[in-house]
This record gives sequence, C-alpha cells and structure tokens, in this order.
Amino acid sequence: MSALAVTGAELDGETVGLRAEDGLIAELGPGVRPADGDEAIDGSGLRLAPPLINGHTHAAMTLFRGYGDDLPLMEWLEKWIWPAEARLEPEDVYWGTRLACVEMIRSGTSSFFDMYWHAAETARAAEEMGLRLVATTAVIDAPRSPGKDRLRDEWLEIVDRLEGFGPLVTPSLGPHAIYTVGRETLEWLAGVTAERELVVQVHLSETEQEVTDCVEANGKRPALYLDEVGLLGPRTALAHGVWLDADELELIAARGATIVSNPAANMKLAVGRAFPYPEAASAGVPLALGTDGASSNSNLDLFEEMKLFSLLQKHTAGDPAALPASEALAIARGQRSQLMGGGELAPGQPADFLLLRTDDPELSVGDPDALLVYGATGSIVDTTVVAGRVLMRHRAVPDADEIIAEVRARAKRLTS
Amino acid sequence: MSALAVTGAELDGETVGLRAEDGLIAELGPGVRPADGDEAIDGSGLRLAPPLINGHTHAAMTLFRGYGDDLPLMEWLEKWIWPAEARLEPEDVYWGTRLACVEMIRSGTSSFFDMYWHAAETARAAEEMGLRLVATTAVIDAPRSPGKDRLRDEWLEIVDRLEGFGPLVTPSLGPHAIYTVGRETLEWLAGVTAERELVVQVHLSETEQEVTDCVEANGKRPALYLDEVGLLGPRTALAHGVWLDADELELIAARGATIVSNPAANMKLAVGRAFPYPEAASAGVPLALGTDGASSNSNLDLFEEMKLFSLLQKHTAGDPAALPASEALAIARGQRSQLMGGGELAPGQPADFLLLRTDDPELSVGDPDALLVYGATGSIVDTTVVAGRVLMRHRAVPDADEIIAEVRARAKRLTS
Repeated sequence: MSALAVTGAELDGETVGLRAEDGLIAELGPGVRPADGDEAIDGSGLRLAPPLINGHTHAAMTLFRGYGDDLPLMEWLEKWIWPAEARLEPEDVYWGTRLACVEMIRSGTSSFFDMYWHAAETARAAEEMGLRLVATTAVIDAPRSPGKDRLRDEWLEIVDRLEGFGPLVTPSLGPHAIYTVGRETLEWLAGVTAERELVVQVHLSETEQEVTDCVEANGKRPALYLDEVGLLGPRTALAHGVWLDADELELIAARGATIVSNPAANMKLAVGRAFPYPEAASAGVPLALGTDGASSNSNLDLFEEMKLFSLLQKHTAGDPAALPASEALAIARGQRSQLMGGGELAPGQPADFLLLRTDDPELSVGDPDALLVYGATGSIVDTTVVAGRVLMRHRAVPDADEIIAEVRARAKRLTS
Repeated sequence: MSALAVTGAELDGETVGLRAEDGLIAELGPGVRPADGDEAIDGSGLRLAPPLINGHTHAAMTLFRGYGDDLPLMEWLEKWIWPAEARLEPEDVYWGTRLACVEMIRSGTSSFFDMYWHAAETARAAEEMGLRLVATTAVIDAPRSPGKDRLRDEWLEIVDRLEGFGPLVTPSLGPHAIYTVGRETLEWLAGVTAERELVVQVHLSETEQEVTDCVEANGKRPALYLDEVGLLGPRTALAHGVWLDADELELIAARGATIVSNPAANMKLAVGRAFPYPEAASAGVPLALGTDGASSNSNLDLFEEMKLFSLLQKHTAGDPAALPASEALAIARGQRSQLMGGGELAPGQPADFLLLRTDDPELSVGDPDALLVYGATGSIVDTTVVAGRVLMRHRAVPDADEIIAEVRARAKRLTS
C-alpha cells in the first residue's frame, strides 16, 4: 500500500501534516511533510478529525427508505417491510449496502456494525467501498423450515464466509432479539461466539412489550435473561436498551457489554421512552451511537444523530447540561467503548480520519465540539480516509451515481 | 425587474418550466419556455419546491453560536449572552444577520420572523441578501432608564424606519414576553399595533415558570392574559407555546393567532415539555415552525427542524403516525398559517422557490415528502429564489466568505 500525506490541515488550532503507511498513521504533527512518491492531499482550510462509528445499522435498508413512513410499527413491518424483504436477493443487499456506504462516507463514518440478511453481500460491498464493518446475519428461529440443524449450518457458513474477507471485515454472530430466538438457539450462539471469539450483536429492550413478555416467559428482565444464556460479555453490542432498568445497567457495566443508542429510530418508531443515558453513564456502561436502518431514520448521518442524542437527553432530563457536546462526540467517535474501536489520531493508530470544512456558516465561530454536535450536519465532511485509503475527496465518492441508479431500479422492483 | 426562467425542472413527476416577472410567478407548466432576454436557469435533474419559512428566530445571534452551550438557562443568559449582548453595536447586528441569511438561503428558507436589538440593521441585512423579513425590536420594559416615554418613542422610531424599507420587509412590534414587559406597556403595544395594523411577535409559555408566575401575578394563564391586554389576534405570532393548556389553545384558535414551534431550542434548553401539537392541531390553531436563534439550536436549518419536530411529536405521543411528513412540510412551508404567507407554486404567487438536488443518496428512493422531512438536510438545496431574484445557485451565496470573516472578527470582540 502506497503512503498518503496530508499537508496544511488544522488540528487543535495548529497547522499539521499527517503521513499514513500500511493503513496506519505513521507521522502526525506540525513538521510532517510528504515523502517522495506519497499521494498528497492539500488540507488547507480543513480540520483534521477522528471519524464517527455507526454502532448499529441495517445498511441495505436504504432500499426501503421513505417506504411506509408514519405508520404504526406492526403495520409498517407486516404490510410493508416484511413482504418487500421476502423478495430480497443477495445482490439487492450488495447494492443497498453500497448506497449506505456512499452515505456513511459522505457523513464521516469510517466503520459500522451491521445486522441483515445475506451478510456476506454486506461485507463484499463494505470491503469494496473501503469501510470497516462488523457484520452478522440476522439470526431468527424459524422452527418449521428449513429446520434447526440446517439453519445453524447456514449461520456458521456465513461466519466462515465473513472470515474470508480482508482486515476491514470483522465476523460477528448474534440473535435478532430475545423474542425472535429461543433459549436453545441463544445458548448455542453463546457457545459458538465464545469458542470463536466472535462479536455478538443483538437488539435488546427496544420496546416495553419486549420487557413484559420476557418477564412473563423467563421470570426476569431482558438483560438478566441474556446474561443467563451466556451472551452478555465485552464483545456484545446491545442495540437500543431503551427500557433497561438500573439493575440491568449495573449488570451490563459489570459484563462490559456496549449499549448502542439509536435516538432517531426510537423517536420515529415511538418506542415510548428515551435511552436512560444518565443511569447508563453513571453505571459505567460502554456506550456507542447508531443510526439504525435508513428506513427507520431516514438517513445514516451520525452528525444529525449526535445532535438528536444530546437534545433528547437534555429534554428528558429537563437539564440543558445533560450529555454535553464533547461527550456526545466521544460516544459517536467510538471512544467510549473498546468494542467500537474508536481512538485518537496518533502515530501507530489506524489511518482513519476526516477533513472537515470549517468555512461553512455553521462552523464559523464558537466552541469546536459544540459546533460539530449542534451546528453541523454530515455535509461539512470534505474528505474521508479509512485505513489510509481516500474514500471521498471534496465530497465526491466514486461510482455514487451508478450506485444510486442501481438502487432505484432494485427498490422499485422490491416495493412495487 | 428582468424576467427569470427555469427550464427542465421536475415538479410532481412532470418536467416543467417556470417564468417569473416582477417578483411573481408568471407562467408554470410543462410547456413553459424562456423568452428572449430572460435570465435562464437550467433545472435539469433538480426538483422545484416551495421554500420554507422560519417563523421565529433571532438572526444576529449567529454571533453567539457555540458560546456557552450545555449550561443551565439562567447561567447561560446571565454570565454569557447578556454581557456579550451589552457590547453589541448596530453594525454587529447587520453582519450577524447577513450570516444568518447565508445559512437560511443555503437551507431553503425564503422568509423569516425576527426579534432582536437594532431591528433596522436586521432589515438592512435581509433586504440586501434578498430574504423576506418580518422584523421587530425586542420590546422590554426598563423602568429606570431611559424612561417610559423615551423608550416608546424609540420603539415607534424603529417601526418608522422598518416601514421605510422595500416590499421584502414587514414592520412588526411586540413584547419580548409577558414577564419582561408590564401590563401598561402591553396595552400600549396593543393600541399601536391595532392602529397601525402591525404584526405582533411575542415569546409565550416557553417555560413552566412563566405560567406559574403569570397565574400568580394576573390570576390567569399566559394566553388568557395576553388576550386580556389585547395582543391576541390574527396578526400575532406566538413563539414556543410549550406549556399552553387546552383552554388556551381553544382561545388562540378562536383569535386566529399563530403558534411557532421551535423544537430544537426547546430540547436544547430543556424546557421540560414538547409543544402540545395534537391538541393545537385539533383545536385548529394556525401553526408554523422556527429555529429560534443560532445560539440556542445551533443552526438555522429548517429541514433538520422539520425532522426534529415530527420525531419529538411521535416520541411524545407514543405514536409513529403522529405529525406525518406531509403535515410537517406544510407547516414548515408556512402553509398552515396565513400570517406566515406560505403558498403553493402557481402563476400569480410570489416567485419564491427552491431547486432541490434529487441525486443525493438520501433522496434516492421513496415517498418525496418523507424523504424531505426524515432523510434530507438543508444541503440538498441547489438554488434559492426569492421574489424572482436568484439568491443561491449551485450552493454558492455571493459574499459568503467575506461575511464569515467579518462575523468571526466581531464575535471574537463580543465574546472575549
């Protein structure tokens, strides 16, 4: 891999250069200059910043954006989404994910945690587009067909295929939710993911109904049940966690699992509560931020999500000091969860970074963190680099037009 | 004024042309072609759409964006904003408003309702930048200096100056709030605004404290008190209205006053409740949407505000069907309040319109209204036209760089 050099960018008020080699930051600082043969990027007038990490999405659901909005949840799922998903081909997932990658690259996301059908197609798309991905297929029990053993073989085969990708792709395995997967399968998943040291992704406590049903069926609340079946550990990403109580948050903190909050989707689908951030933070739970799928958001812009996250927490707490900008930014950068893998820009770290336009009106004056969270949208990202590869420069992502045209054709087939 | 012609744009699935003369739409439809001498705009690949109307802002507060975020309300006002505002010169308001206009033009806003100091400077800036403005100075009683009569003369002088501007500027007068202006001044304002047929702007029921204090002081809730002093009528714009009850909403509907909701600022300042939209809508209250000032938002993007508005209402109602996209859009377009003046694109109407990019990933597939509200941000606006004048083309607003540099220098002086 050839070296990449950025010159003249701003970082913490200084003008700096950055050199990336073999996917890592090799040098960073005021005196850093390009070497002969480096691919050079002029960072003048741009600010160097860590990228954002999308802790929970269903990338290919860009195919179903703007399809059945403003409907009650079950009507939306049963009459709109599920019939459309029943027509999904693997190639649809590939193209839908490519479009999601275009959007994430354009809004400064370097890495995403994804759960969807045909996960190897998700991985193929992410790898081509250059984003990091933690991928899992949606594990859902389907007792009648094609049968328990065959399903397990299929899930394992997908993990094997995911393991065949390059270093950008991390295989993962996880139940869709505790209400769509039975105890036996959950325990089997716990065994497999422990043995193979896999990341676990699961929706947890998104709705009050899930809690009520879990208590009725298992005599305990969802996080305790997930722990009992062996799936609550430091490699577990819990999406939503809206209805978790204080005891569950303590347990999750003790196990080191990460909760991924998705405020836009929670509000849009009206799950009835805000994620209990103050309690989770004081319990020491590792935290991340996600957009959920584009069809329940309806975009993948983590800048917008940071603002919503902070504003919803202030609103809920009745306190404008709740979830300040710097903390929202750290969470969205994956710096509040080891599992998310977000770090600081420093030599030896992955060469994942953004160059932000600072000449937009929204960033003209004021505290930089506050402007990024409350003032900006993803449109301030000029350049996105992941593993030393330039994925966007001056807001142009290669092949974006072709991808949009292809997704339009496929969405039309799936939703008509 | 020379004629403007747009060709090849999309409107409701058709390819149309539009001609504007003397600030009005002269022709609109599939067969419309430019005439000799027209200023021509190629609308290929762009969608024609009505612009958005910002029903409540303090435009010049772009000077204080990112300044004292994440603080309790009174600490923010007393230690940060008020001392900085004490240093404000008229020329600061001019430049701060120009920057706000750049942002509003870039995010598809054609018209704004503003309350701030040195309102004639607000008007000078808006007129130069080409936006419509309903302007008022902030009327606040200051018993000790410079004295009641002198203050009233000053307020009237500002109205006179506002009346000297061209057709884009509408003079207005109004109390900052019922807790900063005494009954005597309120009644005087009612007389003046009735006699001169002026728009009235007032903050109403933003916090619970205001309600409690009003009931204690006046024996009735804020809207009833405002009606009693004679300020509740069809030319009145009520900002916030968060804590209004059912009786107040019925009264406001009967009087035909408009409530302007500002969800981002309400959440950011944690006023403790969401605007009671379902009750207001069923009472038939005219409604509009505002961003409030950039320092309590922190941007002026009504696309983002529409999404927040709808999501907060769904969240509060526990119903994903609450405030559907088409209704949020109509409110933001000023089509749910005569006072806001928003209309449909049609011959004879003001030549205020947008050309939107439809090749962005966020608008690629799905219901157009839902995509605009939930998927888009203001960055999808390619071209903004107000009164037949092109204010932005391909996202470039004339003089933006100079304005940003000037605001940076002035903000530094004001906030250091």
